Amino acid sequence: MEPSKNKTPLGEVVLEEVGELLRRHQLVEGLASRQETPRQGLVEGLIHKLHAVELQKKLDELHPADVAYVLEALPLDQRLVVWDLVKAERDGEILLEVSDAVRETLIEHMDEDELVAATENLDTDEIADLAPDLPREVMEDVFRSLSAEEREQLRSAMSYPEGTVGALMDFDMISIRDDITIEVVLRYLRRLDEMPDHTDQLFVVDRAGVLKGLLPVNRLLVTDAETVVTAVMQTELNRFQPGDKAHDAAQAFERYDLVSAAVVGEGGRLIGRLTVNTVMDYIREETDNDMLSAGGLREDEDLFASVWKSVRNRWTWLAVNLVTAFIASRVIGVFEDSISKLVALAALMPIVAGISGNSGNQTITMIVRALALGQITGANARKLFVKEIGVSVLNGLIWGGVVGLFAFFIYHSWQLGVVMTGAMVLALLLAAVMGVAIPLAMQKLGRDPALGASVMITAITDSGGFFIFLGLATVFLV
Amino acid sequence: MEPSKNKTPLGEVVLEEVGELLRRHQLVEGLASRQETPRQGLVEGLIHKLHAVELQKKLDELHPADVAYVLEALPLDQRLVVWDLVKAERDGEILLEVSDAVRETLIEHMDEDELVAATENLDTDEIADLAPDLPREVMEDVFRSLSAEEREQLRSAMSYPEGTVGALMDFDMISIRDDITIEVVLRYLRRLDEMPDHTDQLFVVDRAGVLKGLLPVNRLLVTDAETVVTAVMQTELNRFQPGDKAHDAAQAFERYDLVSAAVVGEGGRLIGRLTVNTVMDYIREETDNDMLSAGGLREDEDLFASVWKSVRNRWTWLAVNLVTAFIASRVIGVFEDSISKLVALAALMPIVAGISGNSGNQTITMIVRALALGQITGANARKLFVKEIGVSVLNGLIWGGVVGLFAFFIYHSWQLGVVMTGAMVLALLLAAVMGVAIPLAMQKLGRDPALGASVMITAITDSGGFFIFLGLATVFLV
Repeated sequence: MEPSKNKTPLGEVVLEEVGELLRRHQLVEGLASRQETPRQGLVEGLIHKLHAVELQKKLDELHPADVAYVLEALPLDQRLVVWDLVKAERDGEILLEVSDAVRETLIEHMDEDELVAATENLDTDEIADLAPDLPREVMEDVFRSLSAEEREQLRSAMSYPEGTVGALMDFDMISIRDDITIEVVLRYLRRLDEMPDHTDQLFVVDRAGVLKGLLPVNRLLVTDAETVVTAVMQTELNRFQPGDKAHDAAQAFERYDLVSAAVVGEGGRLIGRLTVNTVMDYIREETDNDMLSAGGLREDEDLFASVWKSVRNRWTWLAVNLVTAFIASRVIGVFEDSISKLVALAALMPIVAGISGNSGNQTITMIVRALALGQITGANARKLFVKEIGVSVLNGLIWGGVVGLFAFFIYHSWQLGVVMTGAMVLALLLAAVMGVAIPLAMQKLGRDPALGASVMITAITDSGGFFIFLGLATVFLV
Repeated sequence: MEPSKNKTPLGEVVLEEVGELLRRHQLVEGLASRQETPRQGLVEGLIHKLHAVELQKKLDELHPADVAYVLEALPLDQRLVVWDLVKAERDGEILLEVSDAVRETLIEHMDEDELVAATENLDTDEIADLAPDLPREVMEDVFRSLSAEEREQLRSAMSYPEGTVGALMDFDMISIRDDITIEVVLRYLRRLDEMPDHTDQLFVVDRAGVLKGLLPVNRLLVTDAETVVTAVMQTELNRFQPGDKAHDAAQAFERYDLVSAAVVGEGGRLIGRLTVNTVMDYIREETDNDMLSAGGLREDEDLFASVWKSVRNRWTWLAVNLVTAFIASRVIGVFEDSISKLVALAALMPIVAGISGNSGNQTITMIVRALALGQITGANARKLFVKEIGVSVLNGLIWGGVVGLFAFFIYHSWQLGVVMTGAMVLALLLAAVMGVAIPLAMQKLGRDPALGASVMITAITDSGGFFIFLGLATVFLV
């Protein structure tokens, strides 16, 4: 291959190319089924095969992650055409790369033998990742095909719940004894055909397998051959336990710029390692989930999921919002008498609720983020409250003033303007207090402060905003 | 150091410890200034110093990223106390780690000499990262202190705008010639005191400095010493140009599990490299910005920024929302007549607007995400439209039905219920169409589809929802 050619194809380009090949492929398929003359059918059949071969060749050249990307971007029928053209021995690595939703659609269309075959080229930690999506019979077959050691690893990898270090670790590491010389290490390595990916360091263990230190590969290369491992190994090290939160481990990787780290079990025995690529995938998934749940989507949705599946994916959020909307509606209902006397209130009330909702969401975004970074302690929580209250009062006076003038110019009533300004200040104050209090309370209760924070603050600022504005108006104007 | 001790202190623990030391430190400071007897003052002064020493010792032990984290979590006055206790030679690396907002507060409190000294231990690409925050005179001094080669690097690093590969690259790489043997490479490496961080591969160049391939360190270790570099180097490689989008490079790092990658200039000459830690920081910053802008915060806000600074950081979003709220208010204003005749409309209208806003936000979240992943092409955009319209009609019938029943039970009017259901279907349809159309249009116009998408869809569903519901009610009920 020409070395000056860039290996990284930009995603869109691949997608266009595959799409074009697919189009030709299916065009011919369409023709073949329509034109029934045997001879024409034969010709079309040949062209059809030609296109399939071309497409297959293209797919073979692609990195598994790129194939996964193409599969995710294709509607179901085309996705399955492409999936059938992928070489069977690559199925496993590609299944690992696609999103959960798309993986389901692919596995649904594979039979038992294909699925068992797909796992053959995978490591045990990778099989563990696929396991939840595989039928029971397939997993039993897979299990039987493994060695005793591999079974143990698979069992161990599957025993840790999602979101723990154990669920992310792999077993693909090189460990060396602490009492040998660098020369022995180098000789040992040279006997290996290749080293596992992301091997930036060797794990130094004692006779019992207890982790003693790390030998960075880079240090290995610049050290005299006669030196003993103990003399050059690093003993200050980041180590994790399989039950540790993956979130914390990810933070350590980001903070200390790690490429790999040891995972130790009871008594400090080395049992696996974490690598930066897995951690990066985890971070991506975590932030994706935050984004999706902020938008009210339960989970990652296949772009081409059926309408019914999508409706179910989204319904929780809509149901919750319906309830909060009903409550807000009843709050307004209480003041129907005032509204019928001064109908301007109906037109002005959404302004108060809307702006305080936005302001509350700003506060909550800040606080949730600071909590995720671990920046909030008992000591500074009070300072934050004071600051947010200050911001809300200032915002209330500024924007409340603008809103009051608006009300005055539209309805020519200075009393209405004053009530509007007062309501804005109070509603923003409510938003600020709740914007700080809700995530802190959720954290205290051991819940994820990001989850549903936005729904809750909006529910409160809606009902609260309507109540404050209509209440003040009823007391002072009606 | 005891090897079995975990080096990674969980952030919260560090913060508590430093906080405790600070509290003692300041307690004494407070005492010292209040009690004026000379002798007592002396004693207090000594204790004060003792605590400062203790705190300083603690800080010296911490990783720069941990110190940065502590600084970010402290209110301004305490932050500056801690900052003064940090050893001057560590200032540079810590400034690199703190957030932009906090960096500003620290730099503001350093004089010119301190700032120049802080850059002394930094690489040129790191100086380039700090440059925008440093005063002009400081940068001139720094420039004078550099060698000609370093000046060239600094100029080059500073010439690339944020969000490009050039702005993220460093110059800290090892390049070797393609015509030498592995033995020569190993000898060359052994002469180095240490290899740069994240050196998972050596860059192979020809006589003219043109990148020819990569020699993974792991392959170096398992290859015979007599082999020539060209025989074992990888020629299929990911390479970037300094003008490439950082977003695309980050996607390549995630997709192909890279640890480092070459950056080449004109004619394929090697000029720098990208490493996974920088890319990970970039991804974090990118997703953070998405989250902040989704919440309507212009930029990362110092948790303890002054009230006035926070107000300014948040005002754009509130101003935009005020405008859209005014428009919605005027839409309602048009129907004041209908509302005064049937006041139930005022209580029911926020339900229609609210639910369609939520549904629109769900659609837009999906589409923005798919666009960011490059999964949407001309070919599948129509399919997406059809799917989202299907989802919205189904949702409209389901939730519209619920809402209609609610209206019927509260106000005992089946006509009102029917209008409510009809309005929900239409409003959700509007939300779905706009939820797909807005991000696609933004993308076509070359704008970031994530930016302001949520504000726009909410503005449309608010005004649209009020208009549809009140319009239908006016036609059929009033």
